Amino acid sequence: MNLPKPFVVIVLSSMTLAHAVGGAPDTTPGQRDIRSQLDAQVQAWNAGNIPEFIQSYADDCVFVGKEMLQGKAALQQRYEKAYPSQAAMGTLTFANLAVRQLDQRVAIVTGEWHLDRNKTAGGPVGGIFSLVWQLRGGKWRIVLDHTT
Amino acid sequence: MNLPKPFVVIVLSSMTLAHAVGGAPDTTPGQRDIRSQLDAQVQAWNAGNIPEFIQSYADDCVFVGKEMLQGKAALQQRYEKAYPSQAAMGTLTFANLAVRQLDQRVAIVTGEWHLDRNKTAGGPVGGIFSLVWQLRGGKWRIVLDHTT
Repeated sequence: MNLPKPFVVIVLSSMTLAHAVGGAPDTTPGQRDIRSQLDAQVQAWNAGNIPEFIQSYADDCVFVGKEMLQGKAALQQRYEKAYPSQAAMGTLTFANLAVRQLDQRVAIVTGEWHLDRNKTAGGPVGGIFSLVWQLRGGKWRIVLDHTT
Repeated sequence: MNLPKPFVVIVLSSMTLAHAVGGAPDTTPGQRDIRSQLDAQVQAWNAGNIPEFIQSYADDCVFVGKEMLQGKAALQQRYEKAYPSQAAMGTLTFANLAVRQLDQRVAIVTGEWHLDRNKTAGGPVGGIFSLVWQLRGGKWRIVLDHTT
C-alpha cells in the first residue's frame, strides 16, 4: 500500500493499543455471536428485565462474586435480590471488552462493567469481570462468570 | 449393590455436597494434571519461589485482579513487587478446589486461596479465584486467572 508514513504509524499504534486494552476486533462467528449476546444483555438489563439478561447463562453455570453460586436459577435469585427495582439496576455499560476464542467451542471474555444510578438507589458501582463461554447445542452460553 | 439404605443415602448426600462446594473428584488425566500443578504451585510459593510458581501460566495469560494484566512476564513482576520477601509470601493454601474439564483442551478451576502470615508481613489474606486452563503442545497452562 502507498499510504503516507505517519498514517501507517498511527493505525499500527492504535491497533496495538486496542489489543492492549482489550479492544481487539472480533473475527470469528463465535466472537460475533458472543458480542451480540453481550449487547443484548446490556439492553435487557437497562429494560429492567433480569430473566432476559440471564438467558445467556448455562443452566449449570458457576458465578463467582463475593461468594460462589452454582446454577442459573441461583444466579437469577441473586440478581433479583441484589437489584429489586429498575432504579436499583440503573444503567449498565460495558467497556474494554475482549472476546478471545480459545478453540471451536470455548471463548473467554474480559471487560469492565459500570452501573450508573442515582444516589438514592445506591449510587454508581462497577468493576471487572471475566466470563467463560461454551458452545453447547449450537448456542454460546456462559459457564463461568467471575465478577468483582 | 446390597448396601444398607442409610449408607447409600449418606454417600449420595456427601457426593452432592462435595459437588456443591467444589470438591468433586478428578476423573480425567487433564484434571489430575492440573491438580498436580496446583499442588506444585503451592509448594513453590511456600518455598518462596515465584519463578517456579509462575511456570503453570501461558506466556500470553491474562490476569484479572484489581486491575488487568497481560502476559506471564507482567504477572511475575506483579508478584515480585507485591510479595518482596518470603515473609510477605507467607504460607499458601487452597481450599474447595473444583477442576472442571469443558472439553479435551480446556478446563476451569475455581477455589479459595489463603495466605497465612505474620502481622508484621501484612497479616493473613485470602479470597476466591477462577482459572481457565488450556492444553497447549501437550502441557496444561493457565490462560486466564481472576483472583479476588
